[in-house]
Amino acid sequence: MAKVLVLGAGMMGTALTIPLTDNEHDVHLVGTHLDGHIIEEIHESRTHPKLRSAVPASVKPYPIAGLEEAMQGVGLIVLGVNSLGIEWAAEVLGPLFSGDVPIVALTKGLVGDGQKLYLLPHVLRNGLPSSYREEVRLAAVGGPSIAGELAARRPTGIVVTGSDQTFLDEVAGILRTPYYHIWTSKDVIGVEVSVALKNVYALAVGMVQGLMEKEGITEEGDVMHNMAAAIFAQGLCEIAYLVDFMGGEVENVYGLPGAGDLYVTCVGGRNMRVGRMLGSGMRYAEVKARYLADDTVEGAELAFAIGDTIDALIERGDLDGAALPLLKTVIDIVCRDAAVVFPWDSFFPSLHS
Amino acid sequence: MAKVLVLGAGMMGTALTIPLTDNEHDVHLVGTHLDGHIIEEIHESRTHPKLRSAVPASVKPYPIAGLEEAMQGVGLIVLGVNSLGIEWAAEVLGPLFSGDVPIVALTKGLVGDGQKLYLLPHVLRNGLPSSYREEVRLAAVGGPSIAGELAARRPTGIVVTGSDQTFLDEVAGILRTPYYHIWTSKDVIGVEVSVALKNVYALAVGMVQGLMEKEGITEEGDVMHNMAAAIFAQGLCEIAYLVDFMGGEVENVYGLPGAGDLYVTCVGGRNMRVGRMLGSGMRYAEVKARYLADDTVEGAELAFAIGDTIDALIERGDLDGAALPLLKTVIDIVCRDAAVVFPWDSFFPSLHS
Repeated sequence: MAKVLVLGAGMMGTALTIPLTDNEHDVHLVGTHLDGHIIEEIHESRTHPKLRSAVPASVKPYPIAGLEEAMQGVGLIVLGVNSLGIEWAAEVLGPLFSGDVPIVALTKGLVGDGQKLYLLPHVLRNGLPSSYREEVRLAAVGGPSIAGELAARRPTGIVVTGSDQTFLDEVAGILRTPYYHIWTSKDVIGVEVSVALKNVYALAVGMVQGLMEKEGITEEGDVMHNMAAAIFAQGLCEIAYLVDFMGGEVENVYGLPGAGDLYVTCVGGRNMRVGRMLGSGMRYAEVKARYLADDTVEGAELAFAIGDTIDALIERGDLDGAALPLLKTVIDIVCRDAAVVFPWDSFFPSLHS
Repeated sequence: MAKVLVLGAGMMGTALTIPLTDNEHDVHLVGTHLDGHIIEEIHESRTHPKLRSAVPASVKPYPIAGLEEAMQGVGLIVLGVNSLGIEWAAEVLGPLFSGDVPIVALTKGLVGDGQKLYLLPHVLRNGLPSSYREEVRLAAVGGPSIAGELAARRPTGIVVTGSDQTFLDEVAGILRTPYYHIWTSKDVIGVEVSVALKNVYALAVGMVQGLMEKEGITEEGDVMHNMAAAIFAQGLCEIAYLVDFMGGEVENVYGLPGAGDLYVTCVGGRNMRVGRMLGSGMRYAEVKARYLADDTVEGAELAFAIGDTIDALIERGDLDGAALPLLKTVIDIVCRDAAVVFPWDSFFPSLHS
């Protein structure tokens, strides 16, 4: 039994408390400064405003002001913040321990500084105090995992990735339940790049639905699944290219973190809804202003986080722009309010056309 | 402009007459001995009983008795029969030409003889007269292509595969329209193994829906998309293993023929419906007797076509059974009426668990 701190009371952070408590770990769930109302609701009714499953009675909810108290004696930190919160998390956690507590990040993302792309564990590590940042053990999870389903104990399979196999085995042991199937992989790049990019490609798959509606095609007729499937496949090919470029293995691209996670992300959710709006003819600025004023959509956030850097890497000749026609298209749609037009003739450049 | 014979008036063969006639080819559509009523209906009303789109006025429909007449002056043969009809097709076509007319097969499948696995183009070639079987030019198509959508001119992307690039370019030129996007690949094994196996794995993804219903989980609650996605990813990994085993490239596994076609096959159709029945608790023999008496389901046909051979190859140590836990499971379910139980602990064997 371990004492586990989960930072971030969003859907995924809160869902993870269920396998953790099923394994009899002592779980402290700390909301971010944006999660105050969630923590209150869990206190009062053991429910989360968005999860259908009850929060286990043994989970101790804390507002962010209680972080220091919640950290006492913790053996593992789980980061449930979103990609925009990773630097903040490093900042608030940094002074509260001395690098002796390992961290598992549920957060997915990539960032660019205009010159280079970085994985989120790198960003997290860099945000921690220099005195121990190189020593702290980090892992991250990837794979198809709708939070509500995990919370409802539906069968779910994920990959835990990091550089230290002993630590990965430890984390797997802490998380694994009869419904939560855990594999480990030392291919951090393959896992992280796949799970980050799937959001941007799910957004593209979502656009197909909107294009269809714009053309007046209804679900009762012959729809556009062929097109969605081609976009799906083009996305996976681009993920494979970028994983290879960054030094990872292709195996996780067609495994749980790539194909599996892209598949589940295309089933529904905010990337698909926003993709649909874009496909139907609204420009991103309008979607943002009307529907996302206080909200983020992961695929769009990723486009902003890496768009300029991808352009610069192509410009410098480090990346081959011809290998990334769909990513460039989505970046144009999100970052430059371009209309949705898919460059079919540029797809699958390694095949003849 | 070419004169094209399409043999087989099923959904896919008939759908292909639409890009062909849009390209102003002279199309002769010949029904098999099972397609008599379809040919009659096309004659009378220019409609196909299952396609929503009209059959173009210029398409000349023939019953199988008219095959010889329809073959006069043909420059390309398109095979639209299903996998069970490929030997029959070779037999009826063989005497009617002398190997000078190339063939494009829409048919997908693999067969085993208890010792070895064979691609369908191999079966087709072997069924042709020995005097020219080695010379006849063959190509096959693969990729996400719901027939009704192609017939409705929805954007569709496929790969044409074969060993002769000049012929592939020719075929691509004959088929390509603004909505029918064609790539070519000389990786026949990668394309053919992917498009054949996707049926068996779609059947497995379909089972998840049935398992859910058996447990009383409704679509309104938290469903089992995480599980379906894990099965999807495991399927792709097994396709990659088998493509590599047979000497193909992994690229088409995460491209249109593998990931793209598996994605579209999981959207609906008979594999999914039969998978659902199996997942809900019916054994295959019962499903077959009650719902498939006069009908086939591609995923199950493939399991029968390769099941014994896969077992023998594993037995002999040529194939690693540990790399194919899902295929073995589906073979047991279909060929031996086993219950649906997924071997989670055997999935993703190349990762640690």
